[in-house]
Amino acid sequence: MRLTKWTDYTLRVLMHCAATQRRAQAPTIGEIAERHDISRSHLMKIVMTLSALGWIESTRGRGGGIRLLKPADQITVGEVLRETETDFHMVECFDDDMNTCRLDRVCKLKDALQEATQRYLDVLDGVTVADLLPSSTRLIEQPLKRMTVKA
Amino acid sequence: MRLTKWTDYTLRVLMHCAATQRRAQAPTIGEIAERHDISRSHLMKIVMTLSALGWIESTRGRGGGIRLLKPADQITVGEVLRETETDFHMVECFDDDMNTCRLDRVCKLKDALQEATQRYLDVLDGVTVADLLPSSTRLIEQPLKRMTVKA
Repeated sequence: MRLTKWTDYTLRVLMHCAATQRRAQAPTIGEIAERHDISRSHLMKIVMTLSALGWIESTRGRGGGIRLLKPADQITVGEVLRETETDFHMVECFDDDMNTCRLDRVCKLKDALQEATQRYLDVLDGVTVADLLPSSTRLIEQPLKRMTVKA
Repeated sequence: MRLTKWTDYTLRVLMHCAATQRRAQAPTIGEIAERHDISRSHLMKIVMTLSALGWIESTRGRGGGIRLLKPADQITVGEVLRETETDFHMVECFDDDMNTCRLDRVCKLKDALQEATQRYLDVLDGVTVADLLPSSTRLIEQPLKRMTVKA
């Protein structure tokens, strides 16, 4: 029942972009990587995926960065999960190729889990990336404090 | 969002016991292992766990087997999942020891996921192991057809 790190990080990227959208300088991959302690290579794949979905645009060079193309109040968490969680096969019988269960087609578990998953997503379809943001986005917007380590 | 094999197999054991409870001979671990193609060692751990919960009793020797102690219409799927799914930490911030997210305590994702998970479990709290059984339990009760492999 755990969500993937891919989902977790994707939501953080979207929130970061939403919280900083009024800034003159759009956030860069480096900034988000540092702020959320996510590896740059992981983050680059997420940014490429979000760009392909048309939710963000990523520009290079001076003044470049990542900007939301789709408003944060129009991206629901349910929509994000449907894109990022590839495994909504709750149990073996959801996957025709892998299924070995002898009760398939007569057991009613699949229907029950499908309904439960639908109710789960219904809640998240009612929550947007904009809703997730704290009332003050200071924690996201402000520069990171550098820690100095004494020798 | 996938359930563990532990949950999948636990539900199959409970369903198998429920479907065969009117039989004179209670099902054995060997029978359930063969019927559902689950390893005996995996199954033994599940049976020990279900015994510890007081849901089944397992007796050895001639005439022994596994019997439900708690009626199948009083065991909900939600209750099973709460016992078998150890990881309801949907994202990193659910786990205080592992959490590195800088938005913790201000971000509203945790609340949204907690509510969604509650709605998911609400559905499964309304479904019992007895509800999962097909109207005819023939597929569970009848002996397996042996396959003969030609040399």
